[in-house]
Amino acid sequence: MPRYSDIEHSPFSLPAGEFNAITDIHGVKVGHFTLVEGDGEWIPGRGPFRTGVTVILPHDGNMYEDKVPAAAHTINGFGKVAGFEQLRELGQLETPVALTGTLNVPRVADVLITIAIEQNPHIGIGFDESGRRGYASVNPVVGETSDGFLSDIQARPIGENEVRAAIDDASSGVVKEGVVGAGTGTSCFGWKGGIGTASRIIPDKFGGFTVGALVQSNFGRPQELTISGVPIGRHIVPPGNVPNPSPGSIMIIIATDAPLESRQLGRLCRRAAFGLARTGSTCHGGSGDFVIAFSTAYRIKDRPSDILSVLPMLGDEQPVIGALGLAVIESVEEAIYNSLLMARTVTGRDGNTRHKLPVEEVRKLISRYGSGY
Amino acid sequence: MPRYSDIEHSPFSLPAGEFNAITDIHGVKVGHFTLVEGDGEWIPGRGPFRTGVTVILPHDGNMYEDKVPAAAHTINGFGKVAGFEQLRELGQLETPVALTGTLNVPRVADVLITIAIEQNPHIGIGFDESGRRGYASVNPVVGETSDGFLSDIQARPIGENEVRAAIDDASSGVVKEGVVGAGTGTSCFGWKGGIGTASRIIPDKFGGFTVGALVQSNFGRPQELTISGVPIGRHIVPPGNVPNPSPGSIMIIIATDAPLESRQLGRLCRRAAFGLARTGSTCHGGSGDFVIAFSTAYRIKDRPSDILSVLPMLGDEQPVIGALGLAVIESVEEAIYNSLLMARTVTGRDGNTRHKLPVEEVRKLISRYGSGY
Amino acid sequence: MPRYSDIEHSPFSLPAGEFNAITDIHGVKVGHFTLVEGDGEWIPGRGPFRTGVTVILPHDGNMYEDKVPAAAHTINGFGKVAGFEQLRELGQLETPVALTGTLNVPRVADVLITIAIEQNPHIGIGFDESGRRGYASVNPVVGETSDGFLSDIQARPIGENEVRAAIDDASSGVVKEGVVGAGTGTSCFGWKGGIGTASRIIPDKFGGFTVGALVQSNFGRPQELTISGVPIGRHIVPPGNVPNPSPGSIMIIIATDAPLESRQLGRLCRRAAFGLARTGSTCHGGSGDFVIAFSTAYRIKDRPSDILSVLPMLGDEQPVIGALGLAVIESVEEAIYNSLLMARTVTGRDGNTRHKLPVEEVRKLISRYGSGY
Amino acid sequence: MPRYSDIEHSPFSLPAGEFNAITDIHGVKVGHFTLVEGDGEWIPGRGPFRTGVTVILPHDGNMYEDKVPAAAHTINGFGKVAGFEQLRELGQLETPVALTGTLNVPRVADVLITIAIEQNPHIGIGFDESGRRGYASVNPVVGETSDGFLSDIQARPIGENEVRAAIDDASSGVVKEGVVGAGTGTSCFGWKGGIGTASRIIPDKFGGFTVGALVQSNFGRPQELTISGVPIGRHIVPPGNVPNPSPGSIMIIIATDAPLESRQLGRLCRRAAFGLARTGSTCHGGSGDFVIAFSTAYRIKDRPSDILSVLPMLGDEQPVIGALGLAVIESVEEAIYNSLLMARTVTGRDGNTRHKLPVEEVRKLISRYGSGY
Repeated sequence: MPRYSDIEHSPFSLPAGEFNAITDIHGVKVGHFTLVEGDGEWIPGRGPFRTGVTVILPHDGNMYEDKVPAAAHTINGFGKVAGFEQLRELGQLETPVALTGTLNVPRVADVLITIAIEQNPHIGIGFDESGRRGYASVNPVVGETSDGFLSDIQARPIGENEVRAAIDDASSGVVKEGVVGAGTGTSCFGWKGGIGTASRIIPDKFGGFTVGALVQSNFGRPQELTISGVPIGRHIVPPGNVPNPSPGSIMIIIATDAPLESRQLGRLCRRAAFGLARTGSTCHGGSGDFVIAFSTAYRIKDRPSDILSVLPMLGDEQPVIGALGLAVIESVEEAIYNSLLMARTVTGRDGNTRHKLPVEEVRKLISRYGSGY
Repeated sequence: MPRYSDIEHSPFSLPAGEFNAITDIHGVKVGHFTLVEGDGEWIPGRGPFRTGVTVILPHDGNMYEDKVPAAAHTINGFGKVAGFEQLRELGQLETPVALTGTLNVPRVADVLITIAIEQNPHIGIGFDESGRRGYASVNPVVGETSDGFLSDIQARPIGENEVRAAIDDASSGVVKEGVVGAGTGTSCFGWKGGIGTASRIIPDKFGGFTVGALVQSNFGRPQELTISGVPIGRHIVPPGNVPNPSPGSIMIIIATDAPLESRQLGRLCRRAAFGLARTGSTCHGGSGDFVIAFSTAYRIKDRPSDILSVLPMLGDEQPVIGALGLAVIESVEEAIYNSLLMARTVTGRDGNTRHKLPVEEVRKLISRYGSGY
Repeated sequence: MPRYSDIEHSPFSLPAGEFNAITDIHGVKVGHFTLVEGDGEWIPGRGPFRTGVTVILPHDGNMYEDKVPAAAHTINGFGKVAGFEQLRELGQLETPVALTGTLNVPRVADVLITIAIEQNPHIGIGFDESGRRGYASVNPVVGETSDGFLSDIQARPIGENEVRAAIDDASSGVVKEGVVGAGTGTSCFGWKGGIGTASRIIPDKFGGFTVGALVQSNFGRPQELTISGVPIGRHIVPPGNVPNPSPGSIMIIIATDAPLESRQLGRLCRRAAFGLARTGSTCHGGSGDFVIAFSTAYRIKDRPSDILSVLPMLGDEQPVIGALGLAVIESVEEAIYNSLLMARTVTGRDGNTRHKLPVEEVRKLISRYGSGY
Repeated sequence: MPRYSDIEHSPFSLPAGEFNAITDIHGVKVGHFTLVEGDGEWIPGRGPFRTGVTVILPHDGNMYEDKVPAAAHTINGFGKVAGFEQLRELGQLETPVALTGTLNVPRVADVLITIAIEQNPHIGIGFDESGRRGYASVNPVVGETSDGFLSDIQARPIGENEVRAAIDDASSGVVKEGVVGAGTGTSCFGWKGGIGTASRIIPDKFGGFTVGALVQSNFGRPQELTISGVPIGRHIVPPGNVPNPSPGSIMIIIATDAPLESRQLGRLCRRAAFGLARTGSTCHGGSGDFVIAFSTAYRIKDRPSDILSVLPMLGDEQPVIGALGLAVIESVEEAIYNSLLMARTVTGRDGNTRHKLPVEEVRKLISRYGSGY
């Protein structure tokens, strides 16, 4: 299975990082647990399952002790993400970010709490003011899209073992894409979607920073699919009698090594929609389209020895934000293409099938209608 | 145990409803499950427990089929509420609102999903567009404050049986207050806090509507407590060696029978802070202070037979919003007093004790310093 | 000069209204005043001027007496719009919307106040509560982008006569596009941009409502320009030594006859970015990209005789919002194309020139690379 | 005329700075221009005038060249402030903050533009990307409340000379309060309100930073007035036949020398409502209650030589934010009291009179009902 960069001489303005993945941001790791179980008729609460969980670790230390600056943005809020209120208030992440199927969010959030407690057994004890902390709690951040076309979502089968397995699986370098983890059962433009990732490096004159995106793609009507500006969905549509239900959602995770404050990371989040739109998304009425961005440039100690930190911070100069924004847009666009191209055909509950986007046909269409990018 | 209205000739401008409770809004029910288990030393994950769950039902039908208009507001976002993104996007509630201890939110949200599925087994099946619905999911709304001073919060003991018990307990009329449900283990101004409620009726010329508030109080330093404008906390403080940790949070639920759209319910939410401030709150850095408001004046069908509804809607005329806002402020203020006055002394994990606010002393202080309200 | 619909068999999903303009929403009128004055060297404060003002009237009655439901959304907030706070709080417009050059916003807002006072001489008098109004004020809503490449923006030449002339010019039916009104001096993808408009009609099964967009286009780098998915900017760039400064901003005004509340109009606003992205925008760091949406389906009386109104309201059913959102996206996309195609070459201050996008070359590129939309 | 600290042994927790004023933050200056002109019958557009303008300068250099980090917050958005969108996006102030009467906002904003252009004649010229700036514009920030009870607001008499006079008047040290500048014509709880200020110093263990507030008070019904927890408005009301119209608005400006990012300054802004509530405000339906906060701890260069800055930043540790928040609350509360106590009786248009709050009676009521603060 090719990645987008294998089938198209890149139409992009910015170069990709080494792995063209969110893991190009030093220290970031991604792990998956994939659940494929059962076949045939849906027995609510029993399967079949085509689902999973994907975790993004800003670093592999104790996230609660060493938080990272972060922001969240809601493009369309028809979704059930966990942890956004505290993320907005404090501008920081204190757990890994986990992605899963819609109704499974609470169970995954619960496991993130369990793990944070293991690593930080003082959670719930509290400190007096000289310790400068109160009764510690922890804010798990979980995103989702619905894999209900292929999987039994009533059962919520992703629990403690599954989340732990995903975290154990986390690694730097190449990221598994397509039908894996939280992307196991998702659909994109009527085809099989899933996990995709990409990265961009901004010019040295703007700091030479890296931006990476990872998506869980689960949106779009077949006729809307656009790749490299070519309206693929006007030419090829998925075989068979594809129902055309609620055209879904997307989770977008952005990482960067640029030293930004939460407000600036929010600016990056808000540019993700421009990458999403390039692929044909029309942000349907039922979509839960959410963006989370974090920076690895500095860490925020849980109980710092000093209330002041000296931090290098990047300004809001227009071309710098412009370059970082462009990196977000191109990373998101390519990550979505990768989520499609790296997927394979999956048959799930009730025999429902999502087909793999036919790469050769796409290649031909781009070649025919491609426009000299 | 007296309610506030028993100890003070009301300093308020607006009259209360029949029960001076959120249940004065016709159809609204409140239920609790209270967990008091174990004593002595904290064994993380095993107890002791002084916690629970409280549910607020906008109506006792199928909330998923008959949603209600709603809004949410974050005063200070250091908290872990569930369901706010979709609530904001769609301006509606489709489950009861549940309140519990901080780390227990995911487990309670998960139970609300279970119950919604039971009542609506098509969740997860999906419909084609002629059914005007996609793959159905459900958005559980759960609020929280931390009862970690008295209870083992690591264990997260509120699960399916407990939430079901709270829903079964739900009734109209008198609402149990103080050490009950989600208020079992919370602290307020260093005293025992908990659940409190109150209501107000606005003048007939503005529609004669009722507004009710229910709070889970868990905030404040002892010296800050203010009742009827009298700085009680300057005169009496809790006995013993009270640690002074993170001074907590509050959940505020507002109900009304006024026909308002979500934006207007948001206007009511934003006035809740003015009631909170009257009690002495200084909105500490670690507080998760959240407000949810809903109207019972009309229902929003899940799959309506007609895409258009004809609705009576209240305008934003200044005095009308002013009256509704005042009703919110006074209800929230009195609900917080009730949460204190109706509580009793509780000893929990590690022998930690939160004492009952001494009503007689409060009465005397109000009488002495009271000011002719 | 052709409109987009003249050069391309529409790649769109939804049909346009009669005029393919924001004026397809019954009652909406658009008027312009265009200021072209002086040539040659810039004498700050004295010209030359290539600027103007465009007004959008939801109806041609007294907007203060008969307000309309509305919402505003900020895609990127590097701009100086007026009136957004009250628009958000009350969810309504009470003046026409005016568009002009960046630094001219206060002067135009001031004129809107003058006009509102003329029509409503009680503004500033106030009423007692029985009149259900306080000291009346008025909230002018003005948007902007910077025409500083072609025009002296320091002078702020748009004042009372100019705004009145634009209002007098307002008419239904065909809307003047391109180099007119607030679009007189703006640039788009390095070419001459300006005013553009388009409309869409959603299917009868979703109510058959009309959505229209009007834009003041002033954004984009040459190489980014994309039309119908064809990367025009990779093939043709403006002649001459074009400086590449801050790549600008856009104002987007959305009108509809669908009966929506402010929250829902906000949902439409947030979809405008998806139309903007289709044209190649990367939402640069210095862009002020703002959206205002209003509905003409009902009016909100300033001092209603009854505090309750009975209103038909459209629900948030996913396909309905999806259709309205698609109508927004396609209207915005086509409106931007029209702003380019209907423009002509303009030379302004210091001999700076923005060339007309060469329509024939664009037509050929679309024909060559076009992809069977 | 006494300040609050002269009539009441402070009930506050934190000590005030040297001047108990926003000018206790080093470098901050405040200036006023006061317009008192004409008497008797209101001739719309001609007077009489009881109005003015107040400017707050974060520093007295070129604000456009040396911007300061800032945030804005809307408590209730029924108002016409200028500049909030860009302030939120970039988290910075690039002009002084000006306060004036409601309908005068555009004219004052226009003057701030004029002055910024004088100091920075390159505004409107633009730079290419190597200069890392585009066509420069400037974002004037202006707040307002309505002085329509005493003054002719239709005329908008505050223009260039008046704003320049206020800036020329700006000084550090003692701040003129009461009937001055933007407070000349405002009303508070039915009495004469106006400008007030106060400051607080947080404990050394939290950094020893100073927080100051300046308010333009124009809100409240007579019976709501509360001072030091004593319901003054239940005991004394303004003499004469006071109409009871729209109970107004407040502008709150917060300054600090604590090194905070914009998000954190937003946290401080959101605590201002708690100080406002202590004085009896019920946030009426027609109120425009806005907060702007800025830090003087570091400056943001307009075109920095380096895109990276090394900055000391304060963390979000709960007790630190708690202390800063308390400083905001107490400063706002006392600033409002000062705005009343330092005012004097003013008769304006149509003979409308706002009386001075009778200090001696207030002192007695506090003494009688005061409660041992």
